[in-house]
Amino acid sequence: MTKTAAIIGGGVIGGGWAARFLLNGWDVRVFDPDPEAERKISEVMDNARRSLPGLSDVPLPDEGTLSFHAELADAVAGVDWIQESVPERLDLKLKVYKSLQEACDPGAVIGSSTSGFKPSELQEGALRPEQIVVTHPFNPVYLLPLIEVVPTGANSAEFVQKAKDLLTSVGFFPLHVRKEIDAHIADRFLEAVWREALWLVKDGVATTTEIDEAIRMGFGIRWAQMGLFETYRVAGGEAGMRHFMAQFGPALKWPWTKLMDVPEFTDELVDMIADQSDAQSGMHSIRELERIRDNNLVGMMRALKAQDYGAGAVLNKHDAALKPGALPTLDEADLSQPIRTLARAVPLDWTDYNGHMTESRYLDAFACSTDRFMEIAGCDSDYIASGGSYFTAETHIRHLDETHAGAKIEVRTQMLLGAGKKLHLFHSMFEGDKLLATGESFLLHVSLENRRPCAPSAAIEAALARVTEAQASLPYPEGAGNAIRKPA
Amino acid sequence: MTKTAAIIGGGVIGGGWAARFLLNGWDVRVFDPDPEAERKISEVMDNARRSLPGLSDVPLPDEGTLSFHAELADAVAGVDWIQESVPERLDLKLKVYKSLQEACDPGAVIGSSTSGFKPSELQEGALRPEQIVVTHPFNPVYLLPLIEVVPTGANSAEFVQKAKDLLTSVGFFPLHVRKEIDAHIADRFLEAVWREALWLVKDGVATTTEIDEAIRMGFGIRWAQMGLFETYRVAGGEAGMRHFMAQFGPALKWPWTKLMDVPEFTDELVDMIADQSDAQSGMHSIRELERIRDNNLVGMMRALKAQDYGAGAVLNKHDAALKPGALPTLDEADLSQPIRTLARAVPLDWTDYNGHMTESRYLDAFACSTDRFMEIAGCDSDYIASGGSYFTAETHIRHLDETHAGAKIEVRTQMLLGAGKKLHLFHSMFEGDKLLATGESFLLHVSLENRRPCAPSAAIEAALARVTEAQASLPYPEGAGNAIRKPA
Repeated sequence: MTKTAAIIGGGVIGGGWAARFLLNGWDVRVFDPDPEAERKISEVMDNARRSLPGLSDVPLPDEGTLSFHAELADAVAGVDWIQESVPERLDLKLKVYKSLQEACDPGAVIGSSTSGFKPSELQEGALRPEQIVVTHPFNPVYLLPLIEVVPTGANSAEFVQKAKDLLTSVGFFPLHVRKEIDAHIADRFLEAVWREALWLVKDGVATTTEIDEAIRMGFGIRWAQMGLFETYRVAGGEAGMRHFMAQFGPALKWPWTKLMDVPEFTDELVDMIADQSDAQSGMHSIRELERIRDNNLVGMMRALKAQDYGAGAVLNKHDAALKPGALPTLDEADLSQPIRTLARAVPLDWTDYNGHMTESRYLDAFACSTDRFMEIAGCDSDYIASGGSYFTAETHIRHLDETHAGAKIEVRTQMLLGAGKKLHLFHSMFEGDKLLATGESFLLHVSLENRRPCAPSAAIEAALARVTEAQASLPYPEGAGNAIRKPA
Repeated sequence: MTKTAAIIGGGVIGGGWAARFLLNGWDVRVFDPDPEAERKISEVMDNARRSLPGLSDVPLPDEGTLSFHAELADAVAGVDWIQESVPERLDLKLKVYKSLQEACDPGAVIGSSTSGFKPSELQEGALRPEQIVVTHPFNPVYLLPLIEVVPTGANSAEFVQKAKDLLTSVGFFPLHVRKEIDAHIADRFLEAVWREALWLVKDGVATTTEIDEAIRMGFGIRWAQMGLFETYRVAGGEAGMRHFMAQFGPALKWPWTKLMDVPEFTDELVDMIADQSDAQSGMHSIRELERIRDNNLVGMMRALKAQDYGAGAVLNKHDAALKPGALPTLDEADLSQPIRTLARAVPLDWTDYNGHMTESRYLDAFACSTDRFMEIAGCDSDYIASGGSYFTAETHIRHLDETHAGAKIEVRTQMLLGAGKKLHLFHSMFEGDKLLATGESFLLHVSLENRRPCAPSAAIEAALARVTEAQASLPYPEGAGNAIRKPA
């Protein structure tokens, strides 16, 4: 049965909630007196539609129905979840709760997106305090999993569990905050960093750019996968968490931040943290944690590389500096032989549950070889920007042997045909002398404007003619032209 | 010409420096009186060799030579870079500098990994202060790009540039810290978060696990790609950075952290930050920044998904909850027709510079279909753990039409042969009624122990026999058995 949520306040946060519910199949009713609310929510929905569904490896439910309501009572009547994201003024929030509790089901969850108020403050004087809970999200709400769920003693355990289950059902990670506190948990860290950052800018130590680089080129990448304590547990190594703390304990008295109010570093505190860390991560050895961490970092950094952003842009620059010498240009290559079009180590994120390089990554490597071949023939990024490119029409791959993460592989490419709009390449992948796979590709040159086949530029035709002439005496490769035969 | 680095102190940090230099083709000499140094460095090298080379899309230079030296003078004589990572005691560091400056080239860079001392403290009383600079790394040093380079007025501009160039040449991102300060930049944020986290644990508000979840499920993922200020610029939306600050300025006076020493929130500070933020990110509109952010987040979260860790594990659980209904089991499927083996939206990270789904991702999708077919036939993760699996031997793909991020695609699979060790599948990928591509796969069942072909379990044979019988009347698909023809 389709569930319904009411979104009270439709800015970036309310819009993110609406998107999360809608794309997980809920109907959503919006109440927001802002005449721009409909436009704002539709912009968030555009972003969410392009990013959230593809995060899943299965289809999300059919998108729910979005409606806008002029009356609060109309928006909340009969809904399962009411999410309040109105401006951070307590008097306003209390007024909203009063109105909506007169109209909504007593069984509905009323979640507040507040970052600043404690649930006990929100429940004060309410018609049914037991129905109100803090459910604090993080922007972009349609992508980030964290929701801080902060109840009080007025909320029953069943109610809290129901709220968490509903959040989980739309893909969130509800973090139960057991003891209410100003700004909950995550925003306390953000506030501490924000305050320290303001000092650094004010004192001229660092600009906003420098501060952002200090975050995203180092500990930010770590924190995307392990938090503070698991990271330090790994850093502490075999000596363990107690040792790590003994080493950095004294620093609490030093001026390593402007924010100097510190807890006393007692044995009791050290034990408490070391024990909690054991419970959290003790099922893995330090060596295992290091490898989990490195697998995560490599995967994420390679994802950023594909976007050419942050740490990924640094990696791309380093590659560009290493490239000359690794891969020959048309003038450098011995054109009478297959041309080296790829040379690399198999990355950690190219392997699968069978422990070897997974099949689609063979095509990834062959596609890189095709790109490199096109590049040295003159079909480079400038040419592509000018409106022409080659599209692959057909591929045939033979898997002849296995390879594993870290192995050094190389692809050599023979051109079987390069004339007019047609390009026919035969790639051979080696690890040392061992032939791992062959990849045969048939491509067509297309106009990127009308997506139709057409001849490439004269310069590319001339480059391909050079290769044709030079490789003319190479034998037609074994395995080229093969098909998977119909079973007898 | 091969460059040489001397590593003084070979723990986790020194070992990370050694790995970074060695894997980028430098020779490395290690001086460390610890009898365990060789073992410790070899363990870091094991981790680095499996993770760093594959980060690059081109081969790294041939690995340099690692040697261990009993005499400091022997280790540093004639080297280009000396990296000091001895314990954080100023007297010890000064003593080390005295000894090594007597033996090293005056032109060498002496970098210190110190997180706590300022460069002016390290240069105090040195033979050649101009040669010593803080170069502060982040663990794991072989993967994370950030190095804080902190010089003093004693270091020439040429020297600082040379140090930065050498760091860049081994893949680091050197961040020039223009004004020395205790703990430099990044560790001041870490210290603030650490202090706040100690309070939360001590006061029983949150455990180490809860704190780590609060970080890695939310802002940690954001900070892996944009820092504090760029993230807030995007959150502030069209109203801009000044508006964002006006909104959160008052919170500086509130107890949102235990760390209460805050700068005064003047117009001047607001202007300074807003102007710096414009210089940093003003080339992109807020809408562009949102899309950059979402592309980055989706790529990283999908990378974590492949590792089933952190936010990626949350996504996998959500998929598992959605899967029933999306993909039929053997008993649910209409076996007389091709079976639906994949249904999903095309994720953002599957598209390429041509703006459409890139060719290797077609095989990624077809491989998922093959996995799903195997799974419903009984070759599931339990079966694979017991020692049998199917390996793809040959693949033929025809690209018939284009598709784009967000498109809903579906794959239907016809079994052409499923007998003995052989499995021959024909996948058809659709977007609605439009046939996008076909993927023909020939697989062999293998023993995971000896990697040799062998018959699958009786249960799998029986399941395949059911499919054979049910699909017997389906026509042999158009395009199956095709080859890329030899040019006439």
